[in-house]
Amino acid sequence: MFEFRVDATSGAARAGTLTLPHGTVATPVFMPVGTQATVRTLSPADLQAVGAQIILANTYHLHVRPGEDVIEQLGGLHKFMAWDRPLLTDSGGFQVFSLEGFRRVDEAGVEFQSHVDGSRRMLTPERAIEIQAKLGADIAMAFDHVIPGGADQATARDALDRTLRWLERCKKRHDELKISGQTLWPIIQGGTLPALRTECLDRVMELSPWTGIAIGGLSVGEPKDKMYNTVEVLEERLPPALPRYLMGVGFPADLVAAVERGVDLFDCVAPTRGGRNGSAFTPEGTLNIRNAAFRTDEGPLDPSCDCETCTTYSRGYLRHLFAAGELLGLRLLSLHNVRYLIRLAEEIRAAIQRGDFAAWAGEWRRRYQHTGVA
Amino acid sequence: MFEFRVDATSGAARAGTLTLPHGTVATPVFMPVGTQATVRTLSPADLQAVGAQIILANTYHLHVRPGEDVIEQLGGLHKFMAWDRPLLTDSGGFQVFSLEGFRRVDEAGVEFQSHVDGSRRMLTPERAIEIQAKLGADIAMAFDHVIPGGADQATARDALDRTLRWLERCKKRHDELKISGQTLWPIIQGGTLPALRTECLDRVMELSPWTGIAIGGLSVGEPKDKMYNTVEVLEERLPPALPRYLMGVGFPADLVAAVERGVDLFDCVAPTRGGRNGSAFTPEGTLNIRNAAFRTDEGPLDPSCDCETCTTYSRGYLRHLFAAGELLGLRLLSLHNVRYLIRLAEEIRAAIQRGDFAAWAGEWRRRYQHTGVA
Repeated sequence: MFEFRVDATSGAARAGTLTLPHGTVATPVFMPVGTQATVRTLSPADLQAVGAQIILANTYHLHVRPGEDVIEQLGGLHKFMAWDRPLLTDSGGFQVFSLEGFRRVDEAGVEFQSHVDGSRRMLTPERAIEIQAKLGADIAMAFDHVIPGGADQATARDALDRTLRWLERCKKRHDELKISGQTLWPIIQGGTLPALRTECLDRVMELSPWTGIAIGGLSVGEPKDKMYNTVEVLEERLPPALPRYLMGVGFPADLVAAVERGVDLFDCVAPTRGGRNGSAFTPEGTLNIRNAAFRTDEGPLDPSCDCETCTTYSRGYLRHLFAAGELLGLRLLSLHNVRYLIRLAEEIRAAIQRGDFAAWAGEWRRRYQHTGVA
Repeated sequence: MFEFRVDATSGAARAGTLTLPHGTVATPVFMPVGTQATVRTLSPADLQAVGAQIILANTYHLHVRPGEDVIEQLGGLHKFMAWDRPLLTDSGGFQVFSLEGFRRVDEAGVEFQSHVDGSRRMLTPERAIEIQAKLGADIAMAFDHVIPGGADQATARDALDRTLRWLERCKKRHDELKISGQTLWPIIQGGTLPALRTECLDRVMELSPWTGIAIGGLSVGEPKDKMYNTVEVLEERLPPALPRYLMGVGFPADLVAAVERGVDLFDCVAPTRGGRNGSAFTPEGTLNIRNAAFRTDEGPLDPSCDCETCTTYSRGYLRHLFAAGELLGLRLLSLHNVRYLIRLAEEIRAAIQRGDFAAWAGEWRRRYQHTGVA
């Protein structure tokens, strides 16, 4: 039920098939983020129309509102949000370490303040697993200790050791609960320090078997080359049989660079957050639709795109929607951006299957980089 | 190209077919309002899915932003907003008389201040026609002098006389422009004073031929019985061959009462405005989805409804979307409310065609009125 098959490789890039209880996922794959059990502005039908195979929801957000018990009573997360394809929930680790407000970390877990009602709550490895069990996604994530991008070695070492102790507790609780239809993936931490990253990977693998493995703590403010280098270091030691998920990464150029370094799954709020700000991915880089230059532009947002937004509306109309504060604009740009990343992953997969990913990536960069975006 | 056929009657209620350049419209019909060239939160595909046959856009809003010249350059309003079915534009009369801010009325027209940039602008009968010609809707409306709900006889008389003088100028300018694919409908004013209303109707008909006729200046704060009575007085004298449009009216009970008094077309922002506030039409009256009672409610918003919202999501999920401030909630409730009114009009039409509208309306009211909403 949680199988991964590598269908083709091209250099370190892999095309795979991940089988999950709610369906199969062709990788590399971009997972849209549905923080509060909805990918902002988009319906499940919209997500299916743009080819979303698997989406992500946030344990922290759903725990504080509406609460995992409400979702369980309403039939679990799939039924609650009317999404019958694969789902992944994060553990809440990233959120409790990145949100503003009170936070106290000790060996037991993290005490934090709800951003909704200010109440103090406690998230432990066991609680994170119990909440995710009630949500019922296909893939649950381990509860980890996340540190800021520029943390020093001592902080990174401390967080790494704690993440590994917490991982054992997560695994134990997950095994005890015997959750049918849900697997647990561990998260590799260690900042941008190669020695810590490889040590973390080795110690995670000592707790095998796993059905997949995630790389966390990147795309949190560190320089791009450090992020790419960290993935590269791990790629050499990652077991080829496991799908690899690079958490929180998803700008177009990052997707290409990470696939080149052996990554299979991605998620990022950039397409929907950017879409709500009027920012659109195109093959020539990012444009902002509010720009006055688009006032009477009859052309589509992205001439190469097959989404509803690009095949139906002019840039002039989309600009009008943003200028007029109309909610349809937020939705149409979000829809396009999600489709853009899903289509990028589809093109990447096709190139890998043809065996010429490096050539494809070189050509893609030549087209894309002249804009200074990549 | 602008034909109206009465297919069936039941008492004063009529089922008709209105043929317009962009398609035929089965009446009675509810027209969703797309103020700024978009029915708030909904796409054209959404509107087609809920059975919208004709929608409305606002000349005032489109004139101040993005401007009729931009829309003309982008191919006219149909192409601009990607709606290929019939469209109606109001004249801007209602808006310039109801919006806050500076306003000066004289015989030439109305000077007003744009709510977008504060600039002073002038709308005259001729300008209202010229702008609507550039927008290119199937139906344009005459520019009228709108007065508040409780206006006295002298004010109503003055506005009525001016509305009729302006109507002549609108008709003259519309004829001069020889706009292919667009007809002009006059608006009956006269407050809630029966003598003024019938006088206005008679004087409008002296300017025949018309392809349709609107009743304006109602649902602006007057008591419901005065509104119904005004429609009733007009019904006896309105030429049966013309479609009758009751402007700005569209709460469920108003729709039933007005069809009973011979009205064929309606528009109202209530379904979309209410939807964005969490307010939903149901056969048992209006409910607010934010209510804590819906927290774990597994049932659909309206069990009798066939829309995407009601066939896909639970009340518990919809409540969560509103509690969490998620934009999808605004869209899903708007979609349902629009479908509710369109389906109500479809049921009314079927009852008229069966010849038992009075019985249907009685039964509908018995179900609906126990909630105190009707």
